[in-house]
Amino acid sequence: MSSQTTTNKNEFAQENDLAQLIGEKEKSFIFQLRPGESFQSHMGVLPHDDIIGQKWGSRVKTHTNKVFTLLQPALDDLLRDIPRETQIMYPKDIGYVIMNMGVGPGKKIIEAGSGSGSLTTILAYLVGDQGHVFSYDNRNKNSLIAKSNLEKFGLDHRATFVTKDISAGFDHSGVDIVFLDIPETHLYIAQARDALIPGGFFGSLVPTTNQVSDLITALKKNNFSYIEVSEIMHRYYKPSATRLRPVDRMVAHTGFLIFARRVTSISETDEI
Amino acid sequence: MSSQTTTNKNEFAQENDLAQLIGEKEKSFIFQLRPGESFQSHMGVLPHDDIIGQKWGSRVKTHTNKVFTLLQPALDDLLRDIPRETQIMYPKDIGYVIMNMGVGPGKKIIEAGSGSGSLTTILAYLVGDQGHVFSYDNRNKNSLIAKSNLEKFGLDHRATFVTKDISAGFDHSGVDIVFLDIPETHLYIAQARDALIPGGFFGSLVPTTNQVSDLITALKKNNFSYIEVSEIMHRYYKPSATRLRPVDRMVAHTGFLIFARRVTSISETDEI
Amino acid sequence: MSSQTTTNKNEFAQENDLAQLIGEKEKSFIFQLRPGESFQSHMGVLPHDDIIGQKWGSRVKTHTNKVFTLLQPALDDLLRDIPRETQIMYPKDIGYVIMNMGVGPGKKIIEAGSGSGSLTTILAYLVGDQGHVFSYDNRNKNSLIAKSNLEKFGLDHRATFVTKDISAGFDHSGVDIVFLDIPETHLYIAQARDALIPGGFFGSLVPTTNQVSDLITALKKNNFSYIEVSEIMHRYYKPSATRLRPVDRMVAHTGFLIFARRVTSISETDEI
Amino acid sequence: MSSQTTTNKNEFAQENDLAQLIGEKEKSFIFQLRPGESFQSHMGVLPHDDIIGQKWGSRVKTHTNKVFTLLQPALDDLLRDIPRETQIMYPKDIGYVIMNMGVGPGKKIIEAGSGSGSLTTILAYLVGDQGHVFSYDNRNKNSLIAKSNLEKFGLDHRATFVTKDISAGFDHSGVDIVFLDIPETHLYIAQARDALIPGGFFGSLVPTTNQVSDLITALKKNNFSYIEVSEIMHRYYKPSATRLRPVDRMVAHTGFLIFARRVTSISETDEI
Repeated sequence: MSSQTTTNKNEFAQENDLAQLIGEKEKSFIFQLRPGESFQSHMGVLPHDDIIGQKWGSRVKTHTNKVFTLLQPALDDLLRDIPRETQIMYPKDIGYVIMNMGVGPGKKIIEAGSGSGSLTTILAYLVGDQGHVFSYDNRNKNSLIAKSNLEKFGLDHRATFVTKDISAGFDHSGVDIVFLDIPETHLYIAQARDALIPGGFFGSLVPTTNQVSDLITALKKNNFSYIEVSEIMHRYYKPSATRLRPVDRMVAHTGFLIFARRVTSISETDEI
Repeated sequence: MSSQTTTNKNEFAQENDLAQLIGEKEKSFIFQLRPGESFQSHMGVLPHDDIIGQKWGSRVKTHTNKVFTLLQPALDDLLRDIPRETQIMYPKDIGYVIMNMGVGPGKKIIEAGSGSGSLTTILAYLVGDQGHVFSYDNRNKNSLIAKSNLEKFGLDHRATFVTKDISAGFDHSGVDIVFLDIPETHLYIAQARDALIPGGFFGSLVPTTNQVSDLITALKKNNFSYIEVSEIMHRYYKPSATRLRPVDRMVAHTGFLIFARRVTSISETDEI
Repeated sequence: MSSQTTTNKNEFAQENDLAQLIGEKEKSFIFQLRPGESFQSHMGVLPHDDIIGQKWGSRVKTHTNKVFTLLQPALDDLLRDIPRETQIMYPKDIGYVIMNMGVGPGKKIIEAGSGSGSLTTILAYLVGDQGHVFSYDNRNKNSLIAKSNLEKFGLDHRATFVTKDISAGFDHSGVDIVFLDIPETHLYIAQARDALIPGGFFGSLVPTTNQVSDLITALKKNNFSYIEVSEIMHRYYKPSATRLRPVDRMVAHTGFLIFARRVTSISETDEI
Repeated sequence: MSSQTTTNKNEFAQENDLAQLIGEKEKSFIFQLRPGESFQSHMGVLPHDDIIGQKWGSRVKTHTNKVFTLLQPALDDLLRDIPRETQIMYPKDIGYVIMNMGVGPGKKIIEAGSGSGSLTTILAYLVGDQGHVFSYDNRNKNSLIAKSNLEKFGLDHRATFVTKDISAGFDHSGVDIVFLDIPETHLYIAQARDALIPGGFFGSLVPTTNQVSDLITALKKNNFSYIEVSEIMHRYYKPSATRLRPVDRMVAHTGFLIFARRVTSISETDEI
C-alpha cells in the first residue's frame, strides 16, 4: 500500500454491484445493478444505467422525482430485504456463528435447511469465490426461493441447493462447517459428523430447552467435543443524545446456539 | 461442483495453516505451521513437520508423550489466544459488527486503535487478499504488538499499521468502513467522515452512556445518517442434557455499539 | 400456633375482601365485596351477596350462566386492573423497590407522583394499618383518579393524596421512605432530603441515562450516601413442559432504579 | 393524618429496633438493640445503650474511635447479613415473589426449605403480627440456624420451624401461599395443593430447565391453573454521573420462577 490516498473504485456504483435505495420512511430496496434493467416501484422508475457511476451515499431520483439515497447494503440489510416464508436468523446470532465457526474466505459449508436463503446469502458472501455453500432443504419450494434470492444478490455461483431428506445423509462430505437450523436437529448428528472433516465445526440454532438437551445428548453420543451452549440478547437504544434510553420492546428469544467440534473418535485413533 | 464426494485438502494440516493444539484442562496453543520450526511448551516439544500432514481433529503427542487434539482455530479461538495488554472486543460484539457493516471479501477498512490487534486479526481474515485493513494507534508499542500478532497468524500482508495521533486525520481515505474503539471517539468523527467513501459505514464501541450521547451529537453534526445504538448480552449455559441451566456469572457489559452511514451532505448534493 | 390443622377464614370470600373474577380468555375483574352491590359486565350480573361465602378458587356464574373463577387478587393483579392514564410501574421494579427500601408494616412513605395510584396501592397494602402513604401529584385529576382506585381496593384509609407542586417542598416530613417517579427528579432532591428521617431511604425510577446522571449529581450534592443504580429485565417463558422456551417478545426497558440513603451530613455531625 | 408535620418515633434508634452499623469499606453489621448488650467487633466495642436514642443516619464511635454510620437495615440488607450455609434467594427474585403471590399483612405462608432463614425473614417481616410463616426443612441443623437468624432480627414469633420430610405432607393447611425452594420440587405438588386454601398461590424457584419442565407437568396433573414461568436479570451500574455504565460482571442466573394458582378441580366442582 504505497499510496496514502487511495482511489477506491468502491466509491462509485458499478455494474453487478448490489445497490440499496432508501426512500421516505426508510423504505428500502436492494438489487444487483444490471445494464439495461430498471428499478420499478410505486414510487417511480429508475434505470440501472442512471445509477451506475453515481457516488455511493448520493441522492438519486425516479421519473416521478421521488428521492432515494443510494447505498451499498450491509449483510444486515440483505437479511431484512429477503422475502421470507420461514423464520429467519437474526444478525446477532449469525454474527456469533461466523465468529465461533470460523466462517471466512475459502471455507466449505453445509447448511440445512435452506429456508429463504438468508443464512445462505451471508455464508456465500463471506466464503468468497474460493469457498462454497451446500444448502439442503427437504422442500423443493424452499430450495427454489433460496436460489432465487442468491441470484438476486449475485451470489448464486457460490452455493449449491439440494432438495433432500437428510436422514439418509448429505451428498457432500469433507466440509469445514455444518450448520443445522431444522426441526429435531438431534436426529441428524451422525449425518453431520460424516459430512465434516476431522476437527470440523458443528453449529445449530434450536428454539426450545428440550431440544438443547436432546442435542447435547446426541452430540456426546456421536463423539463431538467442546460443546458450547449460549444465547444472545440484543437490545436497541433510541439514538437521542439528550434522552438516551433503551427502546420499549425487544426480541426476547430467537433460539439457543449450540456449537461443537468433530474430534477423531477413540476407535478412529486406535486404527492409527 | 460436479463431484458429490469432495476431497477437501482442508482435511489435513498443511504448511502455513493455522493450527490449534488443545491439551489437558483445555489449555490451548495457536500457531502457523512452518517447516523446520517446533512447538515448545512445558508439556513437551513437537516439530511442526510432525504435525503437517496429520488429519485435523486427530491426537498428536509431544516428545514427553503429552496428548493434544489438533484443530483448526476458529476466529473466536484466535481472539482468546492473543496476548493482550489492552481490553479486547468480544466475539458477540465483533460478530454483529461484521454483520452490520458488511465486513467481507474485498473491503477496505480503517480501524483505530490497533490495541493488541485482535479486531485487526478478524477483519484481515474476512477481507481476504483483495481487501485491506489500515490500523491506527497513537502508541508505537501497540502497533508493534498488533503487527506481531498478525504475523503469527499469517495475516500481516492484509494489514498496514500506522502509529499516529488521528486528530490531524487519517493517512488513508476512500475506505468502505471506519471502526473506532478509542477514548473520546466523538472527537474524531469529522476525520472518520473524510476517510470514508460516500455511503460508507461508521462503527464504534464505547463503554459509557455519556460517550454514546457525545457520539450521537457528533455524528449528527457531521451529517451521518441511519444512526443505530445497541448492546449485546451473551449468556452461556452449562452443556448438561439433564441439568441444563445458564452459568452462574456472565459479562454484564462490554460496550455500546453505535453505527451510522456517511450520506452525501446537502451542500455536497447542491454542488451537483 | 397450637393447632396443626388451621381453619383459615381466608378460605371463603368475605365482606370487604378484594375479589377477582377470571372468565373466558382470562378476562379479569377486581372489586371489593360489598353487601347489596352487584358485579355487572357484558357477561352478565352477579350480586356480591352470591359471592360472599363462596370458597376461593371455586367457579361462580352470572345470571347469563357465564362461568368465572373466583380468586383473591395478588398485588400483581391489582396493578394490571388499575385503569391508567399514565405509565405505571411494573411488578419486577416494584418488587425490588420493596426489598431495597424496606417497605413493610408501619412504614411512613412519601411518593410522587400519584399517577393512577398503582404504586400507592401496593405501598398502602404493605404498610398495613400502622403505616401510611403520602402521595403527591401536581395534577388534581391524577390525585382524584388515584384516590378512587385505592377506594376500590379498600385501601384509601392508609393513603393521603396531596395535589401540589413539590418545588416548594413536601407538606409531610419525618418519613422513612421517599420514592419519586416524576419528570426531572433531580430538581427535587433537597425536598426529598428534608422530608426523610435521618438514615431514610430515597428511591426513584427514571427512564433515560441522562436523568440517571443528573440524579447521581443531585444526590451527591445533597449528601446522600450508598447510591445504587440498576435495572431489571424480566423474561417470561411459554409454560410448556415439552417445548419450554422464552416468549418471542419482551419489555426491553421500563426505567433505571436509583436508591440512596439520607446520612447525617458532615455539618450536621459537627453541630453535635 | 391531621398534622402535616409528623413526629416520627422512627427518627431515633429505639430498644428492640434492628440497627445496621456501616463502617469503613462498607463493612456492615446488623443486630437488634437490646439494653445491656454490646456490639463487639475487631473494630471495637459499642454498648447498645449508647446507640439507643441516637438519630438514624448519624455517626457513632466504638471505644477505639472507629466511626460507623447508624442505619435501619432494609430487607435487602438483612439478606446480605444472614450467615449462610446454603444458597440464598436474591432480592430481585424475592421482590417479584412478593408482588406475584400477594405476600403482605395477615397472610399465612408455608415455605420449604428453611435454608438459612433468609426468605423466612422477609416473609415474617411482611406478614406482620397477624400473619404467620410455617417453615419446613428436612435437616434439623437448618431449622435451628434459620430460627436463630429470625431471633436475631426479632421476628421469630411470626415463624414456626418444622423439621420434616414433606413427602408425607405438611402439618399445616389452609394457608394462602406455598413457596418451595427445594430439590425435585415436582415431587411435592400434591402436598402443596393439600396445604393451600382454594385459590391459593403456589410458587417455586428452580435452577434447571429440566426441573421447570417437570414442575409444569406436575402442576397441570394436580389441577393448578394460571401457570407462569419467568426469570429475572438484574444489572447494576457504576453510579458515576460522568462515566455511567453497567458494571463489568453480573449474576447470569439464580433460577426460574414458577407460579400457579390452586383452582377448585372439576371433580370438586361437580360435587357442588
